[in-house]
Amino acid sequence: MDFSVSEDHQLIEDAISAICAEFDDDYWSRLDEAHEFPWDFYNRLAEGGWVGIAIPEEFGGGGQGIAEAALVLRTIAASGAAMNGCSAVHLTIFGLNPVLMFGNDRLKETFLPRAAAGDLHVAFGVTEANAGTDTSQIQTRATRDGDNWRIRGQKIWTTKALESEVVLLLARTGEADSGLDGLSLFLADLDPNHVDIRPIPKAGRNAVASCEVFYDDLPVEGWRLVGEEGKGFRHILHGLNPERILLASEATGIGEAALRRAVAYANDREVFGRPIGANQAISHPLAKARIELAAAWRAAQEAAWRYDNDLPCGEHANSAKYLAAEASFAAADAAVQTHGGMGYAREYHVERYWREARIQRLAPVSQEMTLNFIAQNIMGLPRSY
Amino acid sequence: MDFSVSEDHQLIEDAISAICAEFDDDYWSRLDEAHEFPWDFYNRLAEGGWVGIAIPEEFGGGGQGIAEAALVLRTIAASGAAMNGCSAVHLTIFGLNPVLMFGNDRLKETFLPRAAAGDLHVAFGVTEANAGTDTSQIQTRATRDGDNWRIRGQKIWTTKALESEVVLLLARTGEADSGLDGLSLFLADLDPNHVDIRPIPKAGRNAVASCEVFYDDLPVEGWRLVGEEGKGFRHILHGLNPERILLASEATGIGEAALRRAVAYANDREVFGRPIGANQAISHPLAKARIELAAAWRAAQEAAWRYDNDLPCGEHANSAKYLAAEASFAAADAAVQTHGGMGYAREYHVERYWREARIQRLAPVSQEMTLNFIAQNIMGLPRSY
Amino acid sequence: MDFSVSEDHQLIEDAISAICAEFDDDYWSRLDEAHEFPWDFYNRLAEGGWVGIAIPEEFGGGGQGIAEAALVLRTIAASGAAMNGCSAVHLTIFGLNPVLMFGNDRLKETFLPRAAAGDLHVAFGVTEANAGTDTSQIQTRATRDGDNWRIRGQKIWTTKALESEVVLLLARTGEADSGLDGLSLFLADLDPNHVDIRPIPKAGRNAVASCEVFYDDLPVEGWRLVGEEGKGFRHILHGLNPERILLASEATGIGEAALRRAVAYANDREVFGRPIGANQAISHPLAKARIELAAAWRAAQEAAWRYDNDLPCGEHANSAKYLAAEASFAAADAAVQTHGGMGYAREYHVERYWREARIQRLAPVSQEMTLNFIAQNIMGLPRSY
Amino acid sequence: MDFSVSEDHQLIEDAISAICAEFDDDYWSRLDEAHEFPWDFYNRLAEGGWVGIAIPEEFGGGGQGIAEAALVLRTIAASGAAMNGCSAVHLTIFGLNPVLMFGNDRLKETFLPRAAAGDLHVAFGVTEANAGTDTSQIQTRATRDGDNWRIRGQKIWTTKALESEVVLLLARTGEADSGLDGLSLFLADLDPNHVDIRPIPKAGRNAVASCEVFYDDLPVEGWRLVGEEGKGFRHILHGLNPERILLASEATGIGEAALRRAVAYANDREVFGRPIGANQAISHPLAKARIELAAAWRAAQEAAWRYDNDLPCGEHANSAKYLAAEASFAAADAAVQTHGGMGYAREYHVERYWREARIQRLAPVSQEMTLNFIAQNIMGLPRSY
Repeated sequence: MDFSVSEDHQLIEDAISAICAEFDDDYWSRLDEAHEFPWDFYNRLAEGGWVGIAIPEEFGGGGQGIAEAALVLRTIAASGAAMNGCSAVHLTIFGLNPVLMFGNDRLKETFLPRAAAGDLHVAFGVTEANAGTDTSQIQTRATRDGDNWRIRGQKIWTTKALESEVVLLLARTGEADSGLDGLSLFLADLDPNHVDIRPIPKAGRNAVASCEVFYDDLPVEGWRLVGEEGKGFRHILHGLNPERILLASEATGIGEAALRRAVAYANDREVFGRPIGANQAISHPLAKARIELAAAWRAAQEAAWRYDNDLPCGEHANSAKYLAAEASFAAADAAVQTHGGMGYAREYHVERYWREARIQRLAPVSQEMTLNFIAQNIMGLPRSY
Repeated sequence: MDFSVSEDHQLIEDAISAICAEFDDDYWSRLDEAHEFPWDFYNRLAEGGWVGIAIPEEFGGGGQGIAEAALVLRTIAASGAAMNGCSAVHLTIFGLNPVLMFGNDRLKETFLPRAAAGDLHVAFGVTEANAGTDTSQIQTRATRDGDNWRIRGQKIWTTKALESEVVLLLARTGEADSGLDGLSLFLADLDPNHVDIRPIPKAGRNAVASCEVFYDDLPVEGWRLVGEEGKGFRHILHGLNPERILLASEATGIGEAALRRAVAYANDREVFGRPIGANQAISHPLAKARIELAAAWRAAQEAAWRYDNDLPCGEHANSAKYLAAEASFAAADAAVQTHGGMGYAREYHVERYWREARIQRLAPVSQEMTLNFIAQNIMGLPRSY
Repeated sequence: MDFSVSEDHQLIEDAISAICAEFDDDYWSRLDEAHEFPWDFYNRLAEGGWVGIAIPEEFGGGGQGIAEAALVLRTIAASGAAMNGCSAVHLTIFGLNPVLMFGNDRLKETFLPRAAAGDLHVAFGVTEANAGTDTSQIQTRATRDGDNWRIRGQKIWTTKALESEVVLLLARTGEADSGLDGLSLFLADLDPNHVDIRPIPKAGRNAVASCEVFYDDLPVEGWRLVGEEGKGFRHILHGLNPERILLASEATGIGEAALRRAVAYANDREVFGRPIGANQAISHPLAKARIELAAAWRAAQEAAWRYDNDLPCGEHANSAKYLAAEASFAAADAAVQTHGGMGYAREYHVERYWREARIQRLAPVSQEMTLNFIAQNIMGLPRSY
Repeated sequence: MDFSVSEDHQLIEDAISAICAEFDDDYWSRLDEAHEFPWDFYNRLAEGGWVGIAIPEEFGGGGQGIAEAALVLRTIAASGAAMNGCSAVHLTIFGLNPVLMFGNDRLKETFLPRAAAGDLHVAFGVTEANAGTDTSQIQTRATRDGDNWRIRGQKIWTTKALESEVVLLLARTGEADSGLDGLSLFLADLDPNHVDIRPIPKAGRNAVASCEVFYDDLPVEGWRLVGEEGKGFRHILHGLNPERILLASEATGIGEAALRRAVAYANDREVFGRPIGANQAISHPLAKARIELAAAWRAAQEAAWRYDNDLPCGEHANSAKYLAAEASFAAADAAVQTHGGMGYAREYHVERYWREARIQRLAPVSQEMTLNFIAQNIMGLPRSY
């Protein structure tokens, strides 16, 4: 084993930190409050070529792996941008992976260079209200229309649907009861004539909307099918581990941001004649959070290293996500508590981190389903659900 | 001991529930989102005479005790009104207690009947940004001006300042270094010519603002001094235990509201072919929350019984508040988790409960200070801060 | 409601405390180490008439209820006797309840006066290794032999089997697949010619053995059948709630003993120039434990009050047991931690409390099964197992 | 970074596992019960050359680093030997490190080859009852006696004192108030004429005694001083991080042993017609423990890598110890709970793991002191004690 941080990774972290320094907590607070997409921030990252970091060089990208993408996203989150910052770029950085892995040449040549340049915004349309975690129940339907398709149905929690030009859309092409084997993946246009997008009012991360999206016979050309018909779920499955790794990394970043503010406040704020950080009831939760965040980040790095080296990484990616979601929320919650009443005020930003850190315990998969995966698939315990 | 619920208490609960049924979760969600005070709700409670429940009958009130006030507030919270509903009436119900206990006749005769009728809104001006939990550091200053006073200074977290006509204001009348002994209590008018009120943007309970309030030589007539000069802190101290009891009761109500929604969702929502409530990872946190909420409510009831019977209740009031704040937040957090991604959406209301339940772990006193009180004052351990 | 402690209860607590003061921690530590039954202690309690407290006066008992029995057992535990002390008397105090409720006159007249006098030791033979929590799977078999019965089978975790003269034994009298409806209850002699008793080496509470008991065609006279044939499970069921109430009360007593030692040590022990109790990392877990133990004890008292007043008490008894088991173990664990390395040494007794407090999270029903009961039977969630 | 496990490490793990397979859980249970040192086990490891693994080759050792020593100890613990197995060899493996780092040639040549061969048992005499965590308060005194010394005083928690020939002894050579600067380190003989050793009865790990040791003018030759006079604390300080790393590794091993038994039981044991592992209340704590144990082990490996590469490792060693102690105890506690009542029986061994896993939260430094270190020395928060 070798735990040294490479020079390249240090350079990435420094470069991203420098860009993020231009967008302070007040920027994010303002956009969050105004429900406004962070275009300035996105464009600065795109200019720097960072949104294409994980796209191969032949398509104009940075040719780096998940390890580097994870570092970029963690650094963004840790700047105080938290999930608002990460969600703005997350899907451009990694969402087209199924196209890269399974797509035909025309798809790759048409879309990957634009994604690498940062001028293609992508949404991800998998989740449906009635199916929930059970993807086999997906009902959105793609029907053949000559060489093309027409898609009809309804998705939920489609992040960035308002800003995106295209959506990676999972739809049923098999029989109604075809389960996971009757699903296909499309890279469809979000054509306003056939697509109705409604933001879902939610607890936080309000600079980037997640939406209900209604597809009303959306026409999709044949070459927009990604990979094989009926293999859509498998194509997506391949990307679940990297997605968990990236989200784990983002979560640890939020935790770092929360700790930075909490430590500063605990040192500055004096009550009863001394800094409140001299109270173990303040300092111990912060110390515990630091220890757990470091462990979660190490777990994410190991999972990324395994993915980039083509080693099995299901246990590692899921474990990293589990640890990071717990540690991140605990850190944010401790940061709120450290600030006392001020922790509830927007001005100190920790309540924003706290609302955003809550997401990861729920999505893209709940902590409970992650434990089910570990118990059943890794430890060999019986299925419980 | 006798744990039976009296018929009177049952009648109170039923009456309040009936009123609250007119104001559903969507009402509260709308007002929270719009930062709008719940006038309709307040007026309905005032009509029914409920806001004066704890004011003596001689002043037109209900002549009931803290036990009944606690029940009213818990029932309001449990309806889904949560802290938005409780904070709208909390201070009219109990805030004038120092006036009742220590005030001169003119104060009592002028203000208590109006409070009992529900047409006097009261704010509470104690906390200052620099003093925090350490009340001895309060700097707002009341200076003699003939028979009257002029008050200058700055308070924070003054709830309902925007809607209130008067404020119970703690100000220093002694020397700068007079600590807790140099403070006096006034029932002052929130005269816009001398008072500047600024709502504090915050994480939740947004139907009722908490404010920074700047007092710029506010004139206060001499008879507006409550109790003795220099005894202001002691006069307030007397009300701390009932306040903790009421807040504990409110917290348990939020928890009940959260559990009701969580149980309904866990029974209705089917994933993988069965209701999600059949998963112990869903049901056990809810069962635990139910057990803990019941224990917290019993603790609050015991503390109220002791207060109403003139028995020492410091340990009981603080313990109730501690238990209720923990159980309430755990219940709300479990309710969010039960709803999966939907738990983050406003539509299901549990994220609102969750944001509001967070308050009680911070205010009016943090859980950590409550543990300090128990450790030092009740268990005889050394002071730690 | 009325939370006042009656004079009678105070007298009971004082009397038991006085007796227990004769048997200090070293007494219990010595017996625990030597695996020796506390005969001296038992006899002192019997002399005082305390073991018969819950047996009706007509049979020579004290005629008190569960509330008083609970108080006796809590006080014993709180003296430092912990489970070693409680288990020595527990079943004589309450184990014959099914005989009292459902037994024929001869059973009652023969055994209850002796139990009341303290010279009848009773064991409880329900649990079987293969059945576990699922009582419907019990295989011990009672076969008719003229007017009498012969019992054959194997029980586990039969506490005090070594010291007891009789055992309340649940055996199958119906078909092999008769489930809960084919069980009958007997008050059988532990006749050494037909009964083989083997203590189970275990983690703690070693002054009172729990045993595997092998019944080899044990003859039982007909009048020893308790209640109706085939109704044995129902007769036992009636006693489950009081048993949970008593065990909850015992658990809170252990917690009190642990806290007393922890607080004393935290005040006495000085490191870095001040008592270690001045550290919040020490004091806060103790304060939290105090709050939670008080809540658990109140819950147990409420459940006892309901039982004694013939009100439904399933939720209350189970909740009390759940709360008490958690609070008791947390208190004992915090007491160990307070003592640092000394917490692991026998000399300071907290490791003994800690080992004994662990039992209640497992028995007589696990915390998990208790949560299942609350979720399913009280909250209306689907069955999960 | 490179997270691959080297072939060498795999060979070490396999070799140790093979040896440990000769000593099953019943072996350890028997020795624990009998308070008997595991000579057979120790000798088998010594034969294989494993106890000298971290001693340089020039002294006949294996010349490996802390990473390899950690792996050996973790593997021993994970076999079910737990702390009984680890403590039997721990100090021979690493205890002479101060001699190696700071000792004169005669000390090294005399003792290191014997330690490498496994025939020198070493104890560690630092802790005193009155000093506790505050080493500056050590009172054991070494007085000059010509070229030699005489040592007088009392140590506590000296592990393996009964079996050891020599002890690394920290004694005051400066003035009474010389604090940390007046301490010196000796490698003294445990001469029965001057040394009285009394085992401390304790909660577990009973195959290896920890003792009170009374030194009554023990003569020590001059060359037995390790390093410089007055620098004894610094010489020991150097070894604190590796000690934490080794203990962290041992703790994770106990956790693995507990999980292995828990998973097997959860799969085998059927109640209510299905394996109990199908209950999430059983499986989720086990899955969580697996995730946390893996993270703790990775943290220990990183800390070891840093130590072996001469990089600062204070944060890493302390964090690993903190994580491992928490995860190990949680795993053992969950294993007990998984076994239900059987978890309390010695036969299933998990109660033994549970008792032994408790040690690490207390020693060699408590979790609370570890959090203090992280808060103050790493995060820059104020000192709290």
